[in-house]
Amino acid sequence: MSRPSEDDLIARYFAPLAGPGGFGLKDDAALMRPPPGRDVVLTVDALVAGVHFFPDDPPASIARKALRVNLSDLAAKGARPEGFLLVLALPADWREDWLDAFARALGEDGAAFFCPLLGGDTVSTPGPLTVSITALGSVAQGRMVARTGARAGDLIYVSGTIGDAALGLALRSGAGDDLPADARGFLADRYLHPQPRLALAGALAAHASGAMDVSDGLVGDLSKMMRASGVRARVDSAATPLSPAARAMIGADPRRRALALTGGDDYEILAAVPPDAAGAFERAALAAGVPVARIGVVEEGPPQAVFIDADGRVETFERESFSHF
Amino acid sequence: MSRPSEDDLIARYFAPLAGPGGFGLKDDAALMRPPPGRDVVLTVDALVAGVHFFPDDPPASIARKALRVNLSDLAAKGARPEGFLLVLALPADWREDWLDAFARALGEDGAAFFCPLLGGDTVSTPGPLTVSITALGSVAQGRMVARTGARAGDLIYVSGTIGDAALGLALRSGAGDDLPADARGFLADRYLHPQPRLALAGALAAHASGAMDVSDGLVGDLSKMMRASGVRARVDSAATPLSPAARAMIGADPRRRALALTGGDDYEILAAVPPDAAGAFERAALAAGVPVARIGVVEEGPPQAVFIDADGRVETFERESFSHF
Repeated sequence: MSRPSEDDLIARYFAPLAGPGGFGLKDDAALMRPPPGRDVVLTVDALVAGVHFFPDDPPASIARKALRVNLSDLAAKGARPEGFLLVLALPADWREDWLDAFARALGEDGAAFFCPLLGGDTVSTPGPLTVSITALGSVAQGRMVARTGARAGDLIYVSGTIGDAALGLALRSGAGDDLPADARGFLADRYLHPQPRLALAGALAAHASGAMDVSDGLVGDLSKMMRASGVRARVDSAATPLSPAARAMIGADPRRRALALTGGDDYEILAAVPPDAAGAFERAALAAGVPVARIGVVEEGPPQAVFIDADGRVETFERESFSHF
Repeated sequence: MSRPSEDDLIARYFAPLAGPGGFGLKDDAALMRPPPGRDVVLTVDALVAGVHFFPDDPPASIARKALRVNLSDLAAKGARPEGFLLVLALPADWREDWLDAFARALGEDGAAFFCPLLGGDTVSTPGPLTVSITALGSVAQGRMVARTGARAGDLIYVSGTIGDAALGLALRSGAGDDLPADARGFLADRYLHPQPRLALAGALAAHASGAMDVSDGLVGDLSKMMRASGVRARVDSAATPLSPAARAMIGADPRRRALALTGGDDYEILAAVPPDAAGAFERAALAAGVPVARIGVVEEGPPQAVFIDADGRVETFERESFSHF
């Protein structure tokens, strides 16, 4: 059976995913007409097999993760998705059934998140499979929520629960064998299938002074946001939201708590909200169905994140965040 | 000497290149406010070491090529550049002097083409160096020049000269030793340093019914445009513009003519222009300083490109175009 050409491959697997600005992927370029009065928000993330995911992860999971990590960035900026571009670098041994499952899942997610494929590039590589997605979103003019916007006095919120993905990844190296199957399944899924908090984007655009998504660990990412904003975060460690499964896994071995707070792949939202907007932000999050927890405050001070434990002591972490680099 | 972290690397080499929408590369996302009344045009191309360029090409040349192949796509769509996103997948043995030269050249080109860096992602890879650039441009609403727009009766134009890059690449495999040094230098440079025809973008947006850039060879790319448009091209082969250096190299071995017409990396513009707009298009190209040659006409018929030689015979080519895939 002969291998399809690049054009055949695009026509067969990716053209069905194309949105109106993608011209059936028959052109060199894609078109986006931003809704009037809105800015375009852009983000790009690359995932390399063996670095950012396991080569034998299901192709559908790889596709969903590649798109969702970008949608998570858009959500953190208060933006709604408008479309995406895909770069796929395929090793010589790629299989059609793999690509079929990958493309189907990407199409499903694109439809579910109102984020159609607009264009891309497919290349061959002697290296590992690499998926790079550029996501485009839009936000009301001037309302993009910057990482640099946190101010002294702001309250610090985090969405969902923290540490599930890092613990889910640890499961794959053999940790947590004692955990009930449903807890293991929950954590493993949190690692494989991030849930971009797009439902929170409106609340962030309306009320947050600064935000970012938590992709490299809560402690390190909050430090990054404080350095970008030039302020200090004081966090009540005990207020960090943990799922029942994470609590169970940490209960069995308390050293896992540091992993939960510094591990990557949460794809939750960290937000700084001025105190007079906090009530409205919490109500908007509730209406959007996204749990948010208040974990600390922003203060004047050296730009860093200080985590205080239940006894009032400053916690130190061996490493603050996970680095894929 | 310790290796810089991803954040250090971005701050040192890439933050100086960032445009106003890039926020000093301190954010997860970039912002673009499209000029009122203009559509956003998007294109992405990935270049893999050993596939799309030689690993030992100068880093400045790799950087320029990576950006310019995307700018060439924007030019073909009638768009002007607005900014770009960079994904850099670095193998473990990357060197700071390499990255310094790469980033400087990228900054110079970004400034020269009014196309600042807006954001990106840097990842490590166990595979070859891979550079992926997403370029954003803008065009007056509804004026993006599609590949699908060629119509029967249109005249077919090509900019500049064809085949130089493919012959320049052949030089690197030892061909053309008999050529004078200046001709060799010209062809080698045409391969290494594409010149995006951005000066022609306005003329295309105003007058062309369809266009694309020639990246995979004139014969194959014109066929692609005809298939996308559902029409046939009849080309006077002898009218294909060739540089003096290309003529000399073909003169020494006439078999190289097919390579010139079907080889890749020209980054010239193919355009279909309605006959009543041809005069205005030619005057606009002249004013922009971009030579354009009329090489054929569009007709009703099976969607393909037919090349007719000086004796009126249809030419056949062993392969129509170059495929990197």
